[in-house]
Amino acid sequence: MNERQSIPMRETLTIQMRQVFPPDTNHHGTLFGGKLMAYIDETASIAATKLARGPVVTASTDSVDFIRPIRVGDVVTIEAMVSYTGKSSMEIFLKITSENPLTRERSIAALSFLTFVALDENGKPTKIPAVIPETDEEKWLNETAIKRAEHRKVRKKESEDLANFFQKVK
Amino acid sequence: MNERQSIPMRETLTIQMRQVFPPDTNHHGTLFGGKLMAYIDETASIAATKLARGPVVTASTDSVDFIRPIRVGDVVTIEAMVSYTGKSSMEIFLKITSENPLTRERSIAALSFLTFVALDENGKPTKIPAVIPETDEEKWLNETAIKRAEHRKVRKKESEDLANFFQKVK
Amino acid sequence: MNERQSIPMRETLTIQMRQVFPPDTNHHGTLFGGKLMAYIDETASIAATKLARGPVVTASTDSVDFIRPIRVGDVVTIEAMVSYTGKSSMEIFLKITSENPLTRERSIAALSFLTFVALDENGKPTKIPAVIPETDEEKWLNETAIKRAEHRKVRKKESEDLANFFQKVK
Amino acid sequence: MNERQSIPMRETLTIQMRQVFPPDTNHHGTLFGGKLMAYIDETASIAATKLARGPVVTASTDSVDFIRPIRVGDVVTIEAMVSYTGKSSMEIFLKITSENPLTRERSIAALSFLTFVALDENGKPTKIPAVIPETDEEKWLNETAIKRAEHRKVRKKESEDLANFFQKVK
Amino acid sequence: MNERQSIPMRETLTIQMRQVFPPDTNHHGTLFGGKLMAYIDETASIAATKLARGPVVTASTDSVDFIRPIRVGDVVTIEAMVSYTGKSSMEIFLKITSENPLTRERSIAALSFLTFVALDENGKPTKIPAVIPETDEEKWLNETAIKRAEHRKVRKKESEDLANFFQKVK
Amino acid sequence: MNERQSIPMRETLTIQMRQVFPPDTNHHGTLFGGKLMAYIDETASIAATKLARGPVVTASTDSVDFIRPIRVGDVVTIEAMVSYTGKSSMEIFLKITSENPLTRERSIAALSFLTFVALDENGKPTKIPAVIPETDEEKWLNETAIKRAEHRKVRKKESEDLANFFQKVK
Ligand SMILES: CC(C)(COP(=O)(O)OP(=O)(O)OC[C@H]1O[C@@H](n2cnc3c(N)ncnc32)[C@H](O)[C@@H]1OP(=O)(O)O)[C@@H](O)C(=O)NCCC(=O)NCCS
Ligand SMILES: CC(C)(COP(=O)(O)OP(=O)(O)OC[C@H]1O[C@@H](n2cnc3c(N)ncnc32)[C@H](O)[C@@H]1OP(=O)(O)O)[C@@H](O)C(=O)NCCC(=O)NCCS
Ligand SMILES: CC(C)(COP(=O)(O)OP(=O)(O)OC[C@H]1O[C@@H](n2cnc3c(N)ncnc32)[C@H](O)[C@@H]1OP(=O)(O)O)[C@@H](O)C(=O)NCCC(=O)NCCS
Ligand SMILES: CC(C)(COP(=O)(O)OP(=O)(O)OC[C@H]1O[C@@H](n2cnc3c(N)ncnc32)[C@H](O)[C@@H]1OP(=O)(O)O)[C@@H](O)C(=O)NCCC(=O)NCCS
Repeated sequence: MNERQSIPMRETLTIQMRQVFPPDTNHHGTLFGGKLMAYIDETASIAATKLARGPVVTASTDSVDFIRPIRVGDVVTIEAMVSYTGKSSMEIFLKITSENPLTRERSIAALSFLTFVALDENGKPTKIPAVIPETDEEKWLNETAIKRAEHRKVRKKESEDLANFFQKVK
Repeated sequence: MNERQSIPMRETLTIQMRQVFPPDTNHHGTLFGGKLMAYIDETASIAATKLARGPVVTASTDSVDFIRPIRVGDVVTIEAMVSYTGKSSMEIFLKITSENPLTRERSIAALSFLTFVALDENGKPTKIPAVIPETDEEKWLNETAIKRAEHRKVRKKESEDLANFFQKVK
Repeated sequence: MNERQSIPMRETLTIQMRQVFPPDTNHHGTLFGGKLMAYIDETASIAATKLARGPVVTASTDSVDFIRPIRVGDVVTIEAMVSYTGKSSMEIFLKITSENPLTRERSIAALSFLTFVALDENGKPTKIPAVIPETDEEKWLNETAIKRAEHRKVRKKESEDLANFFQKVK
Repeated sequence: MNERQSIPMRETLTIQMRQVFPPDTNHHGTLFGGKLMAYIDETASIAATKLARGPVVTASTDSVDFIRPIRVGDVVTIEAMVSYTGKSSMEIFLKITSENPLTRERSIAALSFLTFVALDENGKPTKIPAVIPETDEEKWLNETAIKRAEHRKVRKKESEDLANFFQKVK
Repeated sequence: MNERQSIPMRETLTIQMRQVFPPDTNHHGTLFGGKLMAYIDETASIAATKLARGPVVTASTDSVDFIRPIRVGDVVTIEAMVSYTGKSSMEIFLKITSENPLTRERSIAALSFLTFVALDENGKPTKIPAVIPETDEEKWLNETAIKRAEHRKVRKKESEDLANFFQKVK
Repeated sequence: MNERQSIPMRETLTIQMRQVFPPDTNHHGTLFGGKLMAYIDETASIAATKLARGPVVTASTDSVDFIRPIRVGDVVTIEAMVSYTGKSSMEIFLKITSENPLTRERSIAALSFLTFVALDENGKPTKIPAVIPETDEEKWLNETAIKRAEHRKVRKKESEDLANFFQKVK
């Protein structure tokens, strides 16, 4: 099925523009972090599906700093792109910008890296094509990804140790 | 308002038990990562509100490893507790367990740390009471939190640098 | 499957804490009754599933008096527990408390009894384990349940008569 | 504002027809009780608003027996009508029928009585017009309502006693 | 299955009354057009199902003019009826009225014609019964439908040409 | 506020990519028309807001032919752009494509024109900047818009006549 060995990174680009309405906001009229995380996962999942050409699951999310609040009326743009590929896993880079339509001021609200794994019909990890970076930005993302992937392996080990610890405690 | 200087950690404990139904799942019948992130943020936010006694915002989420898939029919338990307090910021520890009601098998599906900041009526960070750990588990969480908080400061700086970089690129 | 003849009542305890946000409220900023009924059914259904270890359906809800309005910002705690078991049916006791996080004032907003029936793979009522009350509160609930169960039988007959009446009228 | 002393019962008739889709159903493909309760409260609330011509709240729901399961694909008809009026409170009668579009078989799935109270701008109970029954069915509902209203007063007292009991216990 | 050759138009009448709450409205407190379109499609789909006695899909919507804004608190009544039948397709007429409960003022907010097609188990168009108009209003709708159906054929051709044009452009 | 007299059409481009999941589909696993209409209105509304730099409302939707079904798993791309501007009204052109991620086959599922009106703080229509078409596609859309706008004026008159007719009938 995945006959193509590799595809340009850009072909996985996935975009969602949304406007923030009161039901998605707290008492201060700013977007809930959990709502943004749900948008992020949905957009990233489409980017991952475009590459994998089949079902994918979220393996992990890196830390996310919510740099600036996103306000009622703002237009949020979520851009996702596969930035690195392993055998069955892929890193998705996400840029979240928000724009005040009144002032046309626009700034980055958060950046995020998620890892997805492609699954076959038995729910087992399955091989995916590689991505080819083309622009400088894409190359930078792709090159720095190796270090992030290694860091995640260490981190995953720690997560599992912590889980084992809490599994026993309770 | 926050006349009490400190409260036992346990008083901030917040629990949500949910059953997973098909609309919240993907083609393999397992819960979407983004859906779980939204549950996590909602539960953590209540724990933070209990301490802050007023509005709070998500400042950041640490990385989350989704250790095991959560399946249709599973009962998910999300437990959140304020594990550490700074001046206006607090760390929330989350334990997510899933249970298959048929087999009564229960295991940890993910662990997570979120940071919330309490805001005053002008949306500015405001002082919060401290939490007092009592059990061994609570003490361990509270003591190890200082290192995590320091790590987050470094990380936040990196996030902002990355944001500045991407702000310029595009 | 249900090899255990009986389990402690407490093991069925199911908890949901939710914060009330504007979209769930009416013009006076108080929670919709129907929204609370949906939370009640969801939480009760999980408690029933924990005992039945398989699918359950709501057979009936007893009357509910909404004693106090629940306001925007309040933290609602819904606690459900199987309080009595018949052959295939079980009574779920629900206590709904609401807390104003600002004042830490907490009071009971409603109490409720629902009856669920466990179903086998053909959708027919199937045998369930019994529950064992341990605390005084649990014993009181379990003992008074017999009278409530009898009352429900009478009531169900009346409901069916009424349904037959309206079936003919229209 | 409520210059008209009374209006025909029929003018408060409120109808919602809905088709049941998979996300609203359990493992057996039948509608969740909590989902139906939410539809019931929404429809009843509109009937009450039509009479009160202003905001209303759910004061209580009588017991509901779910006589028959409602299946995926069924068309559910929820009919609500103010059946009795006190000073500020009104009883809403609800008839829920479900129809299988394939066989055109139609039957009553549940009947229900809810009580709503009209509120003024300060959230205090306020006077409402009376309803005038015209058909035999309406007259029967209106006449039997007085006994149900008395029964509810006794019941409410019991609910409050029970709430006081549990308030102390915990 | 569809043994009856034709049924009275009126038997397909489908009604939904809804009250508009803040989450469904924009900054000016008026209902979103997209929300109303979703209500329209849902109600029309039930009317079509009642005739087809099986699955149906939306083939097209005619233009809709939103004649008057619908405001928070208004009660919206959506009435749908099959107004004309082809072999497998049917035209649904929709009347949307809104009422201010305070003033009891009621007016038409929009009118709409949708076309649905009945599908068999393989997803292929399948024959449906005809509808018989009885009232003057129904007869008028049924007679004028032929011209609208012809107009739609021309329009569909234009849509396909336009789609082909844009297919090539990009 | 709207100091710029005109802006390039392209600056209003708004994109939403979504993946279709089972809850959004009917028995045949194809997307509900009403769900797509809601996506269309949401995306168009953002494009209109970008130009108007303030609140907008949907004035009308032209007819929409659903050329091809959109299936579970498909990635839907909704692209909206302001294609023509009057004094306070603007025409939004929408192209909806769906892609099967497995086969990477991509085709146009629907095209649509909606008209929005910009409102000032009193809810009255307010002046907006003009758009400047740049590409051939944009020029074609902009030039043909005048005829569509005239056609809508005639159509609106007919809608109002029809509304008056039905206002009297019932
Ligand atoms: C993700 C998952 C399929 C990995 O399974 P596994 O048994 O660990 O498989 P492997 O060890 O063979 O790893 C497969 C790939 O995933 C990567 N991976 C596994 N866990 C990871 C993590 N936490 N973060 C990043 N990558 C991870 C591995 O590095 C490997 O990459 P590669 O194939 O590119 O070399 C499994 O952990 C899982 O099902 N988790 C739950 C996913 C889920 O349901 N998410 C939503 C929760 S609500
Ligand atoms: C969180 C926020 C209020 C912090 O504001 P700020 O101007 O950086 O304030 P300060 O520098 O005074 O920091 C206040 C506290 O927050 C902590 N903090 C700030 N950013 C943080 C981060 N990314 N992670 C963890 N803690 C953080 C600081 O360490 C400090 O802690 P202390 O008071 O306990 O010592 C601000 O960054 C913000 O509004 N972010 C967006 C929040 C949001 O809307 N979330 C949802 C997004 S959809
Ligand atoms: C309903 C409510 C306004 C009644 O207030 P109150 O202080 O008891 O007012 P009163 O004693 O003056 O009673 C007002 C009317 O309500 C009726 N009433 C009060 N409680 C009732 C109940 N549980 N069931 C039926 N009727 C009830 C009274 O009989 C009286 O009727 P009348 O005016 O027709 O004679 C109040 O209990 C309340 O706010 N409850 C919460 C409502 C709510 O928020 N519902 C949703 C919960 S999620
Ligand atoms: C609940 C239901 C399965 C009972 O079926 P039934 O044919 O009446 O079965 P039985 O008479 O054998 O009763 C089975 C048990 O349910 C109990 N029961 C039945 N109706 C009940 C009611 N309205 N209230 C309380 N208990 C009830 C019986 O007492 C019996 O209890 P036991 O086994 O502990 O002795 C059936 O009425 C049903 O499917 N109702 C619809 C459920 C539903 O779909 N709910 C959601 C509606 S949206």
